[in-house]
Amino acid sequence: MLLHHTLGNGNFEVFSEMSKNISCAMAKLNDPHEAATLIDNAIRECWVQSRPVYITLPTDMVQKKVEGERLKKPLDLDHPPNQSEKEDYVVDVVLKYLHAAKNPVILVDACAQRHRVLDEVHALIEKSNLPTFVAPMGKGAVDETLPNYGGVYAGDGSNEGVRDRVESSDLILSIGAIKSDFNTAGFTYRISQLSTIDFHSDYVRVKYSEYPGVRMQGVLKKVVAKMGKLNVQPGPTASNNIAHEDKGMSNNEVISHDWLWPRVGQWLQPDDIVITETGTANFGIWETKFPKGVSALSQVLWGSIGYSVGACQGAALAAKETGNRRTILFVGDGSFELTAQEVSTMIRQGLKPIIFLINNEGYTIERYIHGFDAPYNDIAQWNYTDLIPTFGGTPDNSKTYRVKTKQEAEDLFNDGEFAAAGKLQFVELFMPKEDAPKALKLTAKASAENNAKQ
Amino acid sequence: MLLHHTLGNGNFEVFSEMSKNISCAMAKLNDPHEAATLIDNAIRECWVQSRPVYITLPTDMVQKKVEGERLKKPLDLDHPPNQSEKEDYVVDVVLKYLHAAKNPVILVDACAQRHRVLDEVHALIEKSNLPTFVAPMGKGAVDETLPNYGGVYAGDGSNEGVRDRVESSDLILSIGAIKSDFNTAGFTYRISQLSTIDFHSDYVRVKYSEYPGVRMQGVLKKVVAKMGKLNVQPGPTASNNIAHEDKGMSNNEVISHDWLWPRVGQWLQPDDIVITETGTANFGIWETKFPKGVSALSQVLWGSIGYSVGACQGAALAAKETGNRRTILFVGDGSFELTAQEVSTMIRQGLKPIIFLINNEGYTIERYIHGFDAPYNDIAQWNYTDLIPTFGGTPDNSKTYRVKTKQEAEDLFNDGEFAAAGKLQFVELFMPKEDAPKALKLTAKASAENNAKQ
Repeated sequence: MLLHHTLGNGNFEVFSEMSKNISCAMAKLNDPHEAATLIDNAIRECWVQSRPVYITLPTDMVQKKVEGERLKKPLDLDHPPNQSEKEDYVVDVVLKYLHAAKNPVILVDACAQRHRVLDEVHALIEKSNLPTFVAPMGKGAVDETLPNYGGVYAGDGSNEGVRDRVESSDLILSIGAIKSDFNTAGFTYRISQLSTIDFHSDYVRVKYSEYPGVRMQGVLKKVVAKMGKLNVQPGPTASNNIAHEDKGMSNNEVISHDWLWPRVGQWLQPDDIVITETGTANFGIWETKFPKGVSALSQVLWGSIGYSVGACQGAALAAKETGNRRTILFVGDGSFELTAQEVSTMIRQGLKPIIFLINNEGYTIERYIHGFDAPYNDIAQWNYTDLIPTFGGTPDNSKTYRVKTKQEAEDLFNDGEFAAAGKLQFVELFMPKEDAPKALKLTAKASAENNAKQ
Repeated sequence: MLLHHTLGNGNFEVFSEMSKNISCAMAKLNDPHEAATLIDNAIRECWVQSRPVYITLPTDMVQKKVEGERLKKPLDLDHPPNQSEKEDYVVDVVLKYLHAAKNPVILVDACAQRHRVLDEVHALIEKSNLPTFVAPMGKGAVDETLPNYGGVYAGDGSNEGVRDRVESSDLILSIGAIKSDFNTAGFTYRISQLSTIDFHSDYVRVKYSEYPGVRMQGVLKKVVAKMGKLNVQPGPTASNNIAHEDKGMSNNEVISHDWLWPRVGQWLQPDDIVITETGTANFGIWETKFPKGVSALSQVLWGSIGYSVGACQGAALAAKETGNRRTILFVGDGSFELTAQEVSTMIRQGLKPIIFLINNEGYTIERYIHGFDAPYNDIAQWNYTDLIPTFGGTPDNSKTYRVKTKQEAEDLFNDGEFAAAGKLQFVELFMPKEDAPKALKLTAKASAENNAKQ
């Protein structure tokens, strides 16, 4: 039977075969007796591995009945604990180096969030009092109001003072690192493996000694429990201070990235959900110090533009269902144009995100990598704020703003009604196309140089 | 190296592995000495097989130089001819049955277009004078102004009088058939294989005798050349007549599908490019008789909604580059919302398509399959015509229309400036959500019944 949504070649396995490459588990529900087990297994693997799974079923399976008894027993989502003797051995090795270290630091990255060790990480940070930094993908993992939080480390793209402190440390406790190009400002980190202990979801590595199969969670718990006295040399302090040269506030001054991102940090509130799109926003947010409890969503590794608008819709829906945390999106014009219609779903669902659209006339990060004035980096110019009424927005459920100067932005950040997020709010921020966050320029330069070198 | 746009697992083959499942050839350009050959081969396979191919290359390959000499020689895009003796044998078998047949007909489908045998098909139609029909995916393959053109055959969804004529024929010359669900109004065709000769791109089948490796092109040429005298019983005549009960034209009467599609046929001009989206448009167009030279684009087999807006953009760009044939899109509101931003690209490129957006409040075909009033078949209600200025349209480069009654539609179809297509034109056609083309209702019913049966 040649059915639509197939290739017409009689092969109904094409899409599961394709998805296999990006799934950590797959369930093909062809037999109602197996269906519940396969679904449960897929859900478990998805949770445990923090990776996508794929469930496929023929239409007729939808109507089949399955035994519901197993629903009474919650899924076992725990990992088996580490082998105790092995874990203790690793903990001793870690502690030996930690006690010997003169100026250790903690560096937290994405997998600390994805593999759910944030409680252990916070216990480590608070008990040790060690200077603590995050990689860009670790933004949101750590309470940035802690006194020993020092900012973002990403090689040349680090926050002020962070690079020196991290790279001069004789022991870096690196938790859940993903050393990708965008997460390291183009591989500009200079950390020696000889001064690094890597904690991961499926192994620990102390300098060059590897301990496969030892998960970080158990190790971190025991390291905290047995920590004792450490040598603590303070590090820099993160802030949302705006550099002197960017403080200018004449009425007509355009909004710069150097000004914007710390100013956003001053404006954010505890427990906000902050979504940043690939491009200027994803790099700019490195200069924003978060209030406590902020969740940060971004896609630093994968970096597919357009992602953030849908992510904002999903996050705002979840926020609405769980108590209305503010959901705040920063997205560039080029990225926004790919998935703009998600905003209509937000309106339809009565969601109340605050969307900052950065209108800087095109693909800024691509300009910095290749062809600054090339037409392939230009985009169609939309009247962005008109999208809201076009998508069904009314004064009751939405409001739009066009902000062209620092003063106008300042006024908006000081507007209590705006901050209260009582309806969907869409802010078009005009920024010069030549401007970009420092970290973006560095990453783009490294990327361009790598391309040229090869 | 963990690069963005990868999974971060060091595997750079993930996407070529995935694409393998939907590609008929793949070129991995890892060596500049092989690159040109691999590219040429991929282009050839793409053309010859009329299927997608995949070319992948690492960034550093972009700058490599290759020998350009081979560019002077055009690619050989021809198939090798059929083995002569075998071909002659098949031609004799075909002619034997064709001469014996009392009331043969011709039925043309998608692969006649995709595999480029339209010259041979037209020679057959014109020389034989046999009643000729098209399957839905064959729309646009045949000159519908030929006197022996009889309309669309799709089982229960056939044009008036067609079903009886085709199914009572004692010999159907079936050219390039794809008997998919949507192409056959839900498998409602009743054609016996005992009265069918199937012509395909890689085999011919006469009743149950199969001739693998014999391509239709050579066979059709010789059948036409040696045809001789046939028994010709006339068939029905296709028309754009509007059925009596749908002719009403009071000012306030809503636009019905039964009225719209023949009326569109009266309005179309020779050489128009007509694009129809999955849903009401794809089924409605069965009731439109085309002027000569009309190209029809649709996605009847695959049926992924949203396709048509991008297809319209591509077709209009090609039309502009090759002499400005009118490009006309019919798309439903639900489908349009998936890819609406392609319209901004059309504006940016100065394209002049005529876009008919059918506003019927949601996923009509899905309503007919399952859950007529279910909320999952509703969509966000946009102010569609406002999209044009929002996307950068101006009175100079674009015009919008909102059409709610037959009279308003009639006025538009009679408007010479509208017909001249001097700028991008966007027509919002309001149609009742309860209405759908007859063929859609039949197909949805068959689909729902098949689901229930399984």
